[in-house]
Amino acid sequence: MPVPTHVFDPPFNILRASHCVLDVTDLAASRKFYADTIGLHVEDADADAVYLRGSEEHQHHSLVLRQAETAACNRIGFKVATERDLDRAVTFLEGLRIAHEIVTRPFQGRTLQFTDPFGFRIELYAEMEKRPHLLRRYDLYKGCHPQRLDHFNVFAAEVQDTIDFYARLGFRLTEYGEEDGEGGRIAAAWMHRKGNVHDFAITNGSGPRLHHFAYWVPTAMNILHLCDVMASSGYLANIERGPGRHGVSNAFFLYVRDPDGHRLEIYTSDYNTGDHDHAPLRWSLKDPRRQTLWGAPAPRSWFEQGSIFVDQPVREPLFVADVTIAD
Amino acid sequence: MPVPTHVFDPPFNILRASHCVLDVTDLAASRKFYADTIGLHVEDADADAVYLRGSEEHQHHSLVLRQAETAACNRIGFKVATERDLDRAVTFLEGLRIAHEIVTRPFQGRTLQFTDPFGFRIELYAEMEKRPHLLRRYDLYKGCHPQRLDHFNVFAAEVQDTIDFYARLGFRLTEYGEEDGEGGRIAAAWMHRKGNVHDFAITNGSGPRLHHFAYWVPTAMNILHLCDVMASSGYLANIERGPGRHGVSNAFFLYVRDPDGHRLEIYTSDYNTGDHDHAPLRWSLKDPRRQTLWGAPAPRSWFEQGSIFVDQPVREPLFVADVTIAD
Amino acid sequence: MPVPTHVFDPPFNILRASHCVLDVTDLAASRKFYADTIGLHVEDADADAVYLRGSEEHQHHSLVLRQAETAACNRIGFKVATERDLDRAVTFLEGLRIAHEIVTRPFQGRTLQFTDPFGFRIELYAEMEKRPHLLRRYDLYKGCHPQRLDHFNVFAAEVQDTIDFYARLGFRLTEYGEEDGEGGRIAAAWMHRKGNVHDFAITNGSGPRLHHFAYWVPTAMNILHLCDVMASSGYLANIERGPGRHGVSNAFFLYVRDPDGHRLEIYTSDYNTGDHDHAPLRWSLKDPRRQTLWGAPAPRSWFEQGSIFVDQPVREPLFVADVTIAD
Amino acid sequence: MPVPTHVFDPPFNILRASHCVLDVTDLAASRKFYADTIGLHVEDADADAVYLRGSEEHQHHSLVLRQAETAACNRIGFKVATERDLDRAVTFLEGLRIAHEIVTRPFQGRTLQFTDPFGFRIELYAEMEKRPHLLRRYDLYKGCHPQRLDHFNVFAAEVQDTIDFYARLGFRLTEYGEEDGEGGRIAAAWMHRKGNVHDFAITNGSGPRLHHFAYWVPTAMNILHLCDVMASSGYLANIERGPGRHGVSNAFFLYVRDPDGHRLEIYTSDYNTGDHDHAPLRWSLKDPRRQTLWGAPAPRSWFEQGSIFVDQPVREPLFVADVTIAD
Repeated sequence: MPVPTHVFDPPFNILRASHCVLDVTDLAASRKFYADTIGLHVEDADADAVYLRGSEEHQHHSLVLRQAETAACNRIGFKVATERDLDRAVTFLEGLRIAHEIVTRPFQGRTLQFTDPFGFRIELYAEMEKRPHLLRRYDLYKGCHPQRLDHFNVFAAEVQDTIDFYARLGFRLTEYGEEDGEGGRIAAAWMHRKGNVHDFAITNGSGPRLHHFAYWVPTAMNILHLCDVMASSGYLANIERGPGRHGVSNAFFLYVRDPDGHRLEIYTSDYNTGDHDHAPLRWSLKDPRRQTLWGAPAPRSWFEQGSIFVDQPVREPLFVADVTIAD
Repeated sequence: MPVPTHVFDPPFNILRASHCVLDVTDLAASRKFYADTIGLHVEDADADAVYLRGSEEHQHHSLVLRQAETAACNRIGFKVATERDLDRAVTFLEGLRIAHEIVTRPFQGRTLQFTDPFGFRIELYAEMEKRPHLLRRYDLYKGCHPQRLDHFNVFAAEVQDTIDFYARLGFRLTEYGEEDGEGGRIAAAWMHRKGNVHDFAITNGSGPRLHHFAYWVPTAMNILHLCDVMASSGYLANIERGPGRHGVSNAFFLYVRDPDGHRLEIYTSDYNTGDHDHAPLRWSLKDPRRQTLWGAPAPRSWFEQGSIFVDQPVREPLFVADVTIAD
Repeated sequence: MPVPTHVFDPPFNILRASHCVLDVTDLAASRKFYADTIGLHVEDADADAVYLRGSEEHQHHSLVLRQAETAACNRIGFKVATERDLDRAVTFLEGLRIAHEIVTRPFQGRTLQFTDPFGFRIELYAEMEKRPHLLRRYDLYKGCHPQRLDHFNVFAAEVQDTIDFYARLGFRLTEYGEEDGEGGRIAAAWMHRKGNVHDFAITNGSGPRLHHFAYWVPTAMNILHLCDVMASSGYLANIERGPGRHGVSNAFFLYVRDPDGHRLEIYTSDYNTGDHDHAPLRWSLKDPRRQTLWGAPAPRSWFEQGSIFVDQPVREPLFVADVTIAD
Repeated sequence: MPVPTHVFDPPFNILRASHCVLDVTDLAASRKFYADTIGLHVEDADADAVYLRGSEEHQHHSLVLRQAETAACNRIGFKVATERDLDRAVTFLEGLRIAHEIVTRPFQGRTLQFTDPFGFRIELYAEMEKRPHLLRRYDLYKGCHPQRLDHFNVFAAEVQDTIDFYARLGFRLTEYGEEDGEGGRIAAAWMHRKGNVHDFAITNGSGPRLHHFAYWVPTAMNILHLCDVMASSGYLANIERGPGRHGVSNAFFLYVRDPDGHRLEIYTSDYNTGDHDHAPLRWSLKDPRRQTLWGAPAPRSWFEQGSIFVDQPVREPLFVADVTIAD
């Protein structure tokens, strides 16, 4: 299947994955999990929402928890370079007749919200309130020392079209999983804007759903300690997969589920991809090291479960990829 | 079932687990695995045997690989305090009418060899050739930086009797797994002489067989790197279990299989047990954190496979413990 | 100078270094330092004293902070094997006409207190209240994850006599610094009871004074994080030396000063010394790698400053060792 | 002094620091140091030069060692986005009447060489031979696991003009050291193209000279191990400064000198700076945590010594900054 060519001059300039807004059913329980166990910093909170960020982030929030009736991913946010890029984005969406609106969000500047043709709820902004980063405030470090939100990974029912849409927006392919043989279809794509392995990964599956959002931590030791802490503080069942090494992206990873089942990846050790001649890496779907370099299988839940997006019906994928069962 | 009382004045003074002698079917392949990948130091070698040690060890060898027709554990070795303790051991074995002999082993002083009543082939010695340790020879470090042999773990068909026999020799219980309820039987015992969690662990199962021998490494990072190296050098299938944290002993562990299937544990982070009033820790066989603090299950092979001892027929265990299946 | 021979059957059986009792001038400030920044667990506290321990320790306390007018080391404690060893210790002290008394200490059993001939205030006990250890309570870990008190290091004015006295009590030499040439004097000795490099180190200098007491932590990463935390929480000036690697003992170390200037070492990675034929390692005083394997010099304060013992006048050392100035 | 404004549309697009070409007086000794001890991968070598790279790098080389009579920095290289950017660079240099030439370099495409107005010898290229990266070839890892060349740091005699020149080329200020008070001068600037703290740092001092080039490694543990290895393999005197934490950039660092005295930094843990609204961080020259967060002073050599550039006379700096002496 066609690997998209990188678009160096996209219609507007998305800088990177920025923030995730989650609907949660017990705000206090979720806050406790993300602030005390994971170790994100609470920057603001009221009765309806909690705003958190990692220690490296200047921006006000990279995770928003919202009290809701039903657990869901409310939206995922990307930062664009300038206010002018927001205007260009409006023009782009109008050209495609994609419904959109400029909305007001606490602590953010002008924000453009839309749902993409595949059901993913997106918001774009150029400016967010800044706070002094806490990178050197080691006295405030907690949990696994999460430093910054890095990427989103979604299940898309129309995986190739979704990849093509985001390629058109300038997302660049770094790695992908593909069926073997002629006409082999792409079943997963890792795409970036900011110069590492990904800001957005798109996986074939029932969608639109959020598979996970990911925070970067400095070392594997932070991840091992998180396992120990979760096992000794009532979160044993929330450890879903890992720790281990992905072949894809070289990440040392841990997947955990929050109190509502939203999946969070804690990872470290991917690599830089900023060169203009960077070439994507292909993985055969038959290569088990793609999923886990060290061989341990992932549990079934990891392949099947994800967070719905608010108000977006989930569709079956257009095809079922020919993946080895051990995957 | 009866937890053995610690015998402070045993019939002779065993200091610690000392060395493991393995029969291997391809000496060159085994040497390559232990020296180049695991990182043990080759101290001597000839056409029939290779002698290896960890970086902290003053003793000439803690692992001996012997070319043989059939893969097996040839014997496990313990160091006693003095030559006089060897004499006392002879007297003790004579008292029990256990066959034994004083043998000559390369690089070792006077060595007492016997097979215990449960089929485990043991050798005792007080003196081995010394070599300057390599702890500060960081320029020679390789692999996962194995520092010292720490313990043996065996499958015993008569688990309670085996525990009682070694308790009589002064091995002290630190942790044990026991069936719940009245009359619950001990299914596994961790016993030490040197002051940490164990020199000898005895597990209920088809025996006599060696479940594994273990080397201590300084940090979990050494273990993660070993996983990466094995996955990228043709040893992916030799990674059997882990990395993870045991509840028992608090060890961060990895289990790997050598080219003949002998099982080696690489671990770090247990604790000190030298106090005279140290009390054993009981684990219910129903508690899954005993096996893996973080919840990931062990593969079936880990529960079922082990190395036979040379010339020792394997018997079914006297009982099958009531263990949860997820174990 | 004479290297003491190990006494395998000492007059009574000391198991290990056990606890340190410090007089501090601001109990709240000291508690904050040790509990919040270093990360020891507060087990009990009242208006006059705070009792703390490491995560691995079953014993009620390994550090006692006492509110006092003047900062000093009140006493250092060793654990003996049994009550009978306490009786033997009394007999031993009577034989040497060393004043002593059986005293009552909170949370401890019968306690024998004395001042040794060199001015070091010592207490011995066989039983202390036990508490479940916190090794697997990772949810309670703080600071640098201190796991257990390991050893004391003192300045002795009569260094050889002090070494000989403790050798007579069964402390075994593992490493020592000695002047070169015939008649070279021992200037420092590392001596153990529990089977690693030391429980008690004795250094030539104005004494009696406590140079430092030491807690063991699992990895160097814990020590680096402590540096970061201290630098960002107002304790920058309390970082005295390190992090670095000692040649002696192979320890990765950090020396910090508490609010009263008492010196605490945080370290990891020494080695086992339990063999009966373990031979002491000699260091020339001219070898700079003894102090710091990587070459960075220690500050003058580290060589000169220490905590007085309550009511014990400080004497000049009997000799000044011929040490290179860069030391 | 004026902090330069970021130029978003520079005359040509430099992607990042790419490679360093060093003249060395003993090619075999330098190769041994960089390949065996540091752990770079030798990609090609002949009698006159050795080409090395880090494990993450797709490009053929990031370090070139050239046999020469005199030790010097021959040139530093930056990668531009496209061949068209090379043409634009030619136009830019012509506009400033800066001498330049298109040269042929082994393994590189068309290469543009020039000496900037301050004496720094630079080369630019868009294409270099690619090799499969070795990131997942953990079996080939050695030394401290250097992953990629990250940045250069130079002494400039005309520091403000040099900063302004590179700002004009699109290098963006992330952190800087400045004298306090009105008219305080900038004494050091950290500037980037690729989205982390720096590709090029410019420090006030006798110049033009190369202060150091830097490789990124995954964790602090890799750096501590390098210290151990260097101390035990004859390179003790080559450890110049560290390990420690910089306030500037948050890097955990080690500075070592190669056999010719060229300075190499091994570091980890800086942060991302790709946002368009990223604001530079100012450090007072009086703040000691700027240099070393943990307080340990740097040796005099670190402030004074550097590598000359071939054929470039060294000039005294235009001013001597008002820096605290402990710096």
